[in-house]
Amino acid sequence: MINNIESTVASSRVRLARNLADHPFPDRLSDPIKAKQIVRTVFEAASGVRSFRLYSMDVITETVAQSLRDDHLISAELAKNKACGAALIAEEEEEDPLHGKFSVMINEEDHLREQYIVKGLNLSLAYLKISAVDDELSKKLRFAFDAQLGYLTACPTNLGTGLRASVMLFLPGLTRMKKMSRLIREISRLGHTVRGVYGEGSAAEGYMYQISNEVTLGVDEDYILSEVQRAVLEIVNLESHARKELLASKPTEIRDQCCRAYGILANCERVSFKEFLRLISDVKLGVALGFLETENFGAMDDFIAGMRPSNLDLLRDEPFDPVERDLFRAQKCRRFFRKIRRVEK
Amino acid sequence: MINNIESTVASSRVRLARNLADHPFPDRLSDPIKAKQIVRTVFEAASGVRSFRLYSMDVITETVAQSLRDDHLISAELAKNKACGAALIAEEEEEDPLHGKFSVMINEEDHLREQYIVKGLNLSLAYLKISAVDDELSKKLRFAFDAQLGYLTACPTNLGTGLRASVMLFLPGLTRMKKMSRLIREISRLGHTVRGVYGEGSAAEGYMYQISNEVTLGVDEDYILSEVQRAVLEIVNLESHARKELLASKPTEIRDQCCRAYGILANCERVSFKEFLRLISDVKLGVALGFLETENFGAMDDFIAGMRPSNLDLLRDEPFDPVERDLFRAQKCRRFFRKIRRVEK
Repeated sequence: MINNIESTVASSRVRLARNLADHPFPDRLSDPIKAKQIVRTVFEAASGVRSFRLYSMDVITETVAQSLRDDHLISAELAKNKACGAALIAEEEEEDPLHGKFSVMINEEDHLREQYIVKGLNLSLAYLKISAVDDELSKKLRFAFDAQLGYLTACPTNLGTGLRASVMLFLPGLTRMKKMSRLIREISRLGHTVRGVYGEGSAAEGYMYQISNEVTLGVDEDYILSEVQRAVLEIVNLESHARKELLASKPTEIRDQCCRAYGILANCERVSFKEFLRLISDVKLGVALGFLETENFGAMDDFIAGMRPSNLDLLRDEPFDPVERDLFRAQKCRRFFRKIRRVEK
Repeated sequence: MINNIESTVASSRVRLARNLADHPFPDRLSDPIKAKQIVRTVFEAASGVRSFRLYSMDVITETVAQSLRDDHLISAELAKNKACGAALIAEEEEEDPLHGKFSVMINEEDHLREQYIVKGLNLSLAYLKISAVDDELSKKLRFAFDAQLGYLTACPTNLGTGLRASVMLFLPGLTRMKKMSRLIREISRLGHTVRGVYGEGSAAEGYMYQISNEVTLGVDEDYILSEVQRAVLEIVNLESHARKELLASKPTEIRDQCCRAYGILANCERVSFKEFLRLISDVKLGVALGFLETENFGAMDDFIAGMRPSNLDLLRDEPFDPVERDLFRAQKCRRFFRKIRRVEK
């Protein structure tokens, strides 16, 4: 049986907003030549720190852009900035058992948005990793910084630390017990935001939500990280309780639903991403509740990411025909699902 | 890969209608004491031939009556005749590899309806078995017989041989390709009837149909048997062709549907008989088309029969609560489905 944190917290992300001193913020930077110059400056500075690949928004294909978005390495806003948006994606460190992903968006809302994503509840580690790189970058780039205010950012909500700590949460219990809207209200009173994983306003896909801090000014980084972590642990407890309630209220229905979802994905011949996401979310719930078992709960989230149309399309020279893609996805599912077993009572 | 006959013909049945001379036909037999006397007379005569269990319709529970009906050992009409209807069910012969089932209905439309049901396409064997018993019975009972007309029966459609040869057919291809109504019309021109398995007028459950001869008079038994067999072989060919057409027209859809049905039944926590029948019919289709494999195709029909509410209720002292029954059925399914495997292309 996996523990509550493991079956609730998918990943942790810390991002720092930074701007170059003596340059207008991106929304005031109307000259694309100057904006492109910033991309080069940041790329050169970053390349001295780690090995990065540069993705210019005006060069990459739609498939690659969508895949980077799906993997939370770039934002929708950056992808739209064809003129001078870019992203640096660090090559994965082979010795990193947590498979952390490091990226820098350039010319998004701020000149730099440095971020580190890591599996599980690991905000401190993510912050350590990102601030080490940030320290190195700050030796090579002069960041806009005010002794009173801290780091200066395009939007005042990021002013000060420029830090946003986000945690991705799998909340099927709270969702199914219809407790999410109340939770979202309560969390916002603590100065945090909870929302569906694909950005503000969008509905939660696959019971996945993101919690992040709203306050960046007047507090230090450790305070932000510990406050977000505290809220996460509270949500983990609420989710655990909600799962127990859900199971107590409809034991047979829930078990049946989770196990059928497993049976379908282990045997289907074709499956759309939408249906796949609905079914595998029930499989994850089934593993969390002990109806199903697998070695690695987190591997399911990686598998989900890989099954997105954009990421499947990346495997080939040209995008899949949609019918072929659904066949290919089902084939991958059948193979992956050999690692998951039904637990008889 | 199983052959076409095996995957199309479920079972064969031969029944003989007989009446006792010097007794009014059942519908004219208003005196229940005399009707009960007929039950005793037949039971005594039959007991000298084989070991039979007597089921009086006024004594057996609703569950037992429903189970006998579901197993095609008695008719709905007999079950309604509480006053003096009865059935003799032969104990199974241990050495019989075909698990033939022998029964005699007493005081149905005729005094005796002797029948033998056997798996697969085995009309001749069924006739051999039933006529051997009928010969023995005729030594002890005087049957109403006319040298010109043959055996006399309550309804003229059974006059002469009193023989009805029926074959149960699994016709998913013809059903899905919408060819059944045309087939039914053509078969009726040959003097046969095709209908859903649960009697006249009812819709086919689980793609199962029954073909039987209409003509009993003016032809001998061998002719009837060979004509029905000829029609069955023709339908087997048409079904085989229809399955190929179905597969060619919707290869992915059909494979997906069959394999999902398998995945659900192998993993569900609860399942109603109605849903079970729909799903296992798709599993049978999947085995017939080679998407799934199992050692014994015919075992699936026995399994289906055993999963009917009536037959599940027989396993216990008192009928199941419906919710419990659906749980129990799903549990049985999961165990049974270990014998069935998905075939990767």
